Amino acid sequence: MDFWVFLIFLLACGPAAATGAMFSPGEWYRGLAKPSWTPPDWLFPVAWTVLYLCMALAAERVARQAGQDPNVGTGLAFWALQIGLNTLWTPIFFGLRKMRGGMIVLVFLWLAVFATLVTFWRVDWFAGLLFLPYLVWVSVAGALNYSVMRLNPENTRQPA
Amino acid sequence: MDFWVFLIFLLACGPAAATGAMFSPGEWYRGLAKPSWTPPDWLFPVAWTVLYLCMALAAERVARQAGQDPNVGTGLAFWALQIGLNTLWTPIFFGLRKMRGGMIVLVFLWLAVFATLVTFWRVDWFAGLLFLPYLVWVSVAGALNYSVMRLNPENTRQPA
Repeated sequence: MDFWVFLIFLLACGPAAATGAMFSPGEWYRGLAKPSWTPPDWLFPVAWTVLYLCMALAAERVARQAGQDPNVGTGLAFWALQIGLNTLWTPIFFGLRKMRGGMIVLVFLWLAVFATLVTFWRVDWFAGLLFLPYLVWVSVAGALNYSVMRLNPENTRQPA
Repeated sequence: MDFWVFLIFLLACGPAAATGAMFSPGEWYRGLAKPSWTPPDWLFPVAWTVLYLCMALAAERVARQAGQDPNVGTGLAFWALQIGLNTLWTPIFFGLRKMRGGMIVLVFLWLAVFATLVTFWRVDWFAGLLFLPYLVWVSVAGALNYSVMRLNPENTRQPA
């Protein structure tokens, strides 16, 4: 493993992690109606920590194939797209309290994560596999965003 | 040029562009004291559009060398880091109105842009050159953030 490349990709998850810490769910979010299957609060930072490590590890494995596989560029382009969208969701949902806006970002994020998984798999199947938990989690997050949006119709489009 | 790879990298600039559109400078920012050399408002979206195109073009040129140059992975890792930090600045500065937080992000962004420029240059000098206007602009943005922070001491740390 190229530790430095892994570290740069892990640092690249930093801005996304920072939005999670800086735009934290306050009283507004706590006051919203949520579905019964909402994961407990403590699970979110734990899940994201594991997912960021998996993402960085997968990207390092793919980056290592540069010099051999021309698909590396496309894969890392999708990786950059997904981390940007990941960074965007929290400020839109918790910062601007735009549930519909958050939902749109999550749809694009799901597609970007799926595209990264498929492109990575072609380069290195284990790197693709490392993206599978992320795809599952974004599906759960999408279902949660959608449910919260439906359960709190009076709160949508309401500015902070 | 691989148009699709260029397009994915351009899409990866989308979240950063979206924060610029969604967390726009409102009355709070207009009311702040600014240095005499502050660029006019219209220049910001124009500059960023040009810079995003340059960034995406540079990344495509580097990604094209995957299969030949093992440095491609490191370069694209730095590219992902800079776009994440770019996406983070606006919500922190205009969303949370944290001038010091914005300054910290800009320092990291400057370093990430510089690292991308140097790594890209090694792979393809023209791709490195395409990052030079970006480095200049982030330097200006950094100087502006710093000046605004110094000129409005009573406004720092004030929440939105």
